[in-house]
Amino acid sequence: MENFFSSNFKLGILGGGQLGKMMLYDTRKYDIQTCVLDPSPDAPCKIACDHFQQGNLMDYETVYDFGKKVDVLTFEIETVNTKALAKLEREGKKVYPSSKTLEIIQNKGRQKLFYEEKNIPTAKFRRFSNKAHLTEGITDNRVKLPFVWKSTQGGYDGKGVSVIKSGADVAKLPDVECIAEEMINFKNELAVIVVRSVSGEIKTYPVVEMEFHPEANQVEYVICPARISDAITLKAIKVAEKVSKAFEHVGVLAVEMFQTQSDEILVNEVAPRPHNSGHYSIEASYTNQFEQHIRAILDLPLGATQSKVGGIMVNLVGAEGHAGDVVYKNIEKIMKMPGVTPHIYGKKQTRPFRKMGHVTIVHENIDEARKIAEKVKNTIKVVSK
Amino acid sequence: MENFFSSNFKLGILGGGQLGKMMLYDTRKYDIQTCVLDPSPDAPCKIACDHFQQGNLMDYETVYDFGKKVDVLTFEIETVNTKALAKLEREGKKVYPSSKTLEIIQNKGRQKLFYEEKNIPTAKFRRFSNKAHLTEGITDNRVKLPFVWKSTQGGYDGKGVSVIKSGADVAKLPDVECIAEEMINFKNELAVIVVRSVSGEIKTYPVVEMEFHPEANQVEYVICPARISDAITLKAIKVAEKVSKAFEHVGVLAVEMFQTQSDEILVNEVAPRPHNSGHYSIEASYTNQFEQHIRAILDLPLGATQSKVGGIMVNLVGAEGHAGDVVYKNIEKIMKMPGVTPHIYGKKQTRPFRKMGHVTIVHENIDEARKIAEKVKNTIKVVSK
Repeated sequence: MENFFSSNFKLGILGGGQLGKMMLYDTRKYDIQTCVLDPSPDAPCKIACDHFQQGNLMDYETVYDFGKKVDVLTFEIETVNTKALAKLEREGKKVYPSSKTLEIIQNKGRQKLFYEEKNIPTAKFRRFSNKAHLTEGITDNRVKLPFVWKSTQGGYDGKGVSVIKSGADVAKLPDVECIAEEMINFKNELAVIVVRSVSGEIKTYPVVEMEFHPEANQVEYVICPARISDAITLKAIKVAEKVSKAFEHVGVLAVEMFQTQSDEILVNEVAPRPHNSGHYSIEASYTNQFEQHIRAILDLPLGATQSKVGGIMVNLVGAEGHAGDVVYKNIEKIMKMPGVTPHIYGKKQTRPFRKMGHVTIVHENIDEARKIAEKVKNTIKVVSK
Repeated sequence: MENFFSSNFKLGILGGGQLGKMMLYDTRKYDIQTCVLDPSPDAPCKIACDHFQQGNLMDYETVYDFGKKVDVLTFEIETVNTKALAKLEREGKKVYPSSKTLEIIQNKGRQKLFYEEKNIPTAKFRRFSNKAHLTEGITDNRVKLPFVWKSTQGGYDGKGVSVIKSGADVAKLPDVECIAEEMINFKNELAVIVVRSVSGEIKTYPVVEMEFHPEANQVEYVICPARISDAITLKAIKVAEKVSKAFEHVGVLAVEMFQTQSDEILVNEVAPRPHNSGHYSIEASYTNQFEQHIRAILDLPLGATQSKVGGIMVNLVGAEGHAGDVVYKNIEKIMKMPGVTPHIYGKKQTRPFRKMGHVTIVHENIDEARKIAEKVKNTIKVVSK
């Protein structure tokens, strides 16, 4: 085995945001040298990595030159230059996940086609190269209202996605390549983190459940384990494994799924990296998703994915009407609550709905955890000074 | 409450070794700015802190000037200049634990007298200002062989401590201030981590047990919870709390104790900081000892000290006959074992018996954890290339 620990081996990470920051806790734990590339001089990863480089993740030369300097290259964000990754792979550099996987995932149209080819259950859809073609599709009834419109590129955190109910909604859409997806009236939105190593060892985490706010229709809690039947659990895990294998994925893959009213499991989207739906694992799991990603891409044995205790994650997003230097109001109150751990990502400025951190609530009894999570949600506020 | 999170608040840490390194995981989690002072340019804390300064921890000016730059000052090693800390305290700087506590603990003679004054049970002892006085004490029978000799200063990890059975052993001793301590034939060596906040909130961790190697007479495993009766558990916790209160300690305090054959609890030594006997808490506890230390010295609410699962810690020390660039032989084999997490401190060079890291083994069943711990111990070796 190659010697990664307190050695000259270098792991390169494209992107220096909060996901990278949390990954660095584990590279530090193992004393694995890291190089991080990020456009921002104040990236959360700026400290705690061994070598920080400021640069554009979409620039071919920048990504290529960065990749040449490291032994294994990974990423914590999808919007990176895949051409540079492909070149590095051709030259024998280890890039995990692969440029091929990333190219498929970067384009939602291509991602949906991939599921079709691989017989992975997903919502019905049609692709359109621009707005005019979409409008035709609606006029000649190939697409029926209501439907879910998704821009094929650059969609993230709800951006580039909208529910289309009328011609007026259509009129508001930008003129970009897009897909029109059948609207799923789902019982539950579920997610499974799958991890697969270079040599193909594969493990799945328990199924998690996204609980939505009744009015706001926003994910409020990520709950592990999901409060679903064993049959649905098995079905969801089987689908998630199938997706990981179909991509021949190396590293952590987050598979987001719908449980339909008829208990079908449909793949919604995937993220080829540690994911918000796996943050609970830092406190609740035997091996957290970040350590697991490192184990997988270095072809080390995978760790146990079971939970020690029940876990719930609440996102900390900037409150409406607040912009400027951040203050975590009442954080000391939630720290009084048992099993509550705030994670502060290190962004100095808050903005409405900006992801500023998250809070994990762990408890041996998941229903107790759920009660505490609600108290947390109603107590802490991300405001400006 | 003062705003510590993503603010301009600065926490100063004297010492940049592995304890500081592990503390930085939690300052990073909370995005609390840190300044670290350490003599070594390759200190494990060099990265992951916000401001690293190379300097002598025993130098008055260096420590004083460093302290002036921060809002709260703490330490991860006892051998620091307490006069500088006292000066900073007089000028209103928050220093936790206090210089007074540290001065008592730095000198083992003074530490023992403190226990006497405060009616804290400890092994009988006599102090001697030099070797000649010790020899007199033996000759006129004030000290009976065998006894435990301890240098009052600079003892660490077994250094400065020896069991004296004969005149020949006495002859070998250095001419320093020392104590002669009654030898305790103990059933168990136990430890309790106590945490006390600025405003006096106090919590204790479960009692841990040090299991010794039958021949080598070295601590092999730190086991949480200790395999002792509830009566002894309560007694040990009561004594540990008494010690913390006697010091009016602020922060984490590790209290090492003997359980005698007659089930007395005697305090052996204390460490006014996160301690080896609390490392298991990173994986096993609801709140690890490093986060807890930060909560305490910033007067934040203390976290839950209970365990999620049973935990065992095994130290990774350099193998005999190996010096030079370190290799963690068979580390991939132990990473296959369930609930096993290696911690690599980041020292590039190994030496016989040098503390290079530790391994935590967690399992819901402590006896299962104990079996796995033995496999770990017999598998991984810290060698040189």
